[in-house]
Amino acid sequence: MDKFIPRDNAFESKVRDSFNRQEVMKTVNASIISVKPGQVELEFIHLPSLTQQHGFIHAGIVSTVLDSACGYAAFSLMAKDSEVLTIEFKVNLLSPAKGDKFIAIGTVKKSGRTITVAEGELFAFTGEQKKLIATMTGTIMSVIDREGINN
Amino acid sequence: MDKFIPRDNAFESKVRDSFNRQEVMKTVNASIISVKPGQVELEFIHLPSLTQQHGFIHAGIVSTVLDSACGYAAFSLMAKDSEVLTIEFKVNLLSPAKGDKFIAIGTVKKSGRTITVAEGELFAFTGEQKKLIATMTGTIMSVIDREGINN
Amino acid sequence: MDKFIPRDNAFESKVRDSFNRQEVMKTVNASIISVKPGQVELEFIHLPSLTQQHGFIHAGIVSTVLDSACGYAAFSLMAKDSEVLTIEFKVNLLSPAKGDKFIAIGTVKKSGRTITVAEGELFAFTGEQKKLIATMTGTIMSVIDREGINN
Amino acid sequence: MDKFIPRDNAFESKVRDSFNRQEVMKTVNASIISVKPGQVELEFIHLPSLTQQHGFIHAGIVSTVLDSACGYAAFSLMAKDSEVLTIEFKVNLLSPAKGDKFIAIGTVKKSGRTITVAEGELFAFTGEQKKLIATMTGTIMSVIDREGINN
Repeated sequence: MDKFIPRDNAFESKVRDSFNRQEVMKTVNASIISVKPGQVELEFIHLPSLTQQHGFIHAGIVSTVLDSACGYAAFSLMAKDSEVLTIEFKVNLLSPAKGDKFIAIGTVKKSGRTITVAEGELFAFTGEQKKLIATMTGTIMSVIDREGINN
Repeated sequence: MDKFIPRDNAFESKVRDSFNRQEVMKTVNASIISVKPGQVELEFIHLPSLTQQHGFIHAGIVSTVLDSACGYAAFSLMAKDSEVLTIEFKVNLLSPAKGDKFIAIGTVKKSGRTITVAEGELFAFTGEQKKLIATMTGTIMSVIDREGINN
Repeated sequence: MDKFIPRDNAFESKVRDSFNRQEVMKTVNASIISVKPGQVELEFIHLPSLTQQHGFIHAGIVSTVLDSACGYAAFSLMAKDSEVLTIEFKVNLLSPAKGDKFIAIGTVKKSGRTITVAEGELFAFTGEQKKLIATMTGTIMSVIDREGINN
Repeated sequence: MDKFIPRDNAFESKVRDSFNRQEVMKTVNASIISVKPGQVELEFIHLPSLTQQHGFIHAGIVSTVLDSACGYAAFSLMAKDSEVLTIEFKVNLLSPAKGDKFIAIGTVKKSGRTITVAEGELFAFTGEQKKLIATMTGTIMSVIDREGINN
């Protein structure tokens, strides 16, 4: 990861405040491990309520945590009055999402004036074993006025 | 949608059985509207437990329901002994996911021996208004032996 | 396709002028079939100079023509002083790109103030037979000042 | 990059032979810098015949070289009798493709029995300056019988 300079010194509290307002993060029981300029790590554990038909974590839940990690990595570099909006993402599911615990790392690849590209990796932990199970590439937009996110 | 001929006459019960084993579908309160060869429709309502920081449905939850719709559309055309596995998907978020009710339609675009490509659309309903808010393109694999989905 | 109202009445000449400045369109020998508000059709023929190792058109050339079709579909709806910039796209290769002639159709799915989402389909023609061989979903940005496309 | 063990000791000559059969590589004037197990580097220079309307390399040509780099990175790890087939890819265009020379690096992220996921990066060189201008994530399939790539 390149070194990034945050445009807003209060970037960490800004990210944490917004994360705490994402009700879905409580539903998937995710929490923040760390917030750095351009990189956010989240973790969650295996819950039966998040599984698909084979008992693994559903690909959409994998996407949920990866999207928050990538989106907040982007948000950490945005100006004070910007809101963050995911435009699109792509997820590759490399292996079934099975494990005791999962860590999602979102990292900014390119931080532009309007558009940020971030990449995410999701690791599964089973006992001592760590395995990369999914990747995300997401395109995230900085929106200045609230109107923009409501249209 | 082209007309598709299911390889398994019991395609509908197969899809419904598998859907019922996806615990996450209960968490997002999704249900099946219809199962046709190559097309599956799901619906869910707005729940505060599924929201992001602005009170809209989180993009990952949008992906969760779209992925199940696309995956089961693919599964509806697979042979009797096949399991379904999403390899990757891309989601475009066209508008904020706000509304009273949401309907996801997954439709097979190309059904191959091993690889199926499906497309999904998510519509939001607010009173009488219907709005397309997200699209998915997903690549889904048919896996014959259970070993394959566990590696 | 929804009906779209072009913001610039000279949309067709604007698209044709820009297309003619794409030198790569000469290299792939592509030409415009039609320009409508929100939809552009391009065609090209099989050339040995565009092939991969099995003698089919290379996936990157498939992407080249699809990207121009999608980009110009988006451009046809943009304001007079806007430039068009592709942010990202995804291509699914449904079947090998073999045929005598190919037609790419780019269609706007969502036209926003800044962001346009367009979808493309590439058809191969062999004698009387028509086959869908690739799809694209692309995210395209409207850029007002030339500075933006040079940074 | 993880260390990968090639399944075919003749992986380098296999990749170079296939690359030499891609006629489009001559059209874009690309050549191989290196072939390692799971990683392939290609280079090409700015040619007016590859440009879009602003004089930059067209996004589809960016994709052409990235797809060959990713596909051959995947192919380098495949068994002796396998053919390589790109199923889909996503490209993010981080900055305009301007420069004197371009290097594409394709790297395998996950090598499976049937499915390989590879990531690509394209760097532009202008004098001494090096800049990341595009990324790719591609899904590539190993096909054993030639029939498979013709259906």
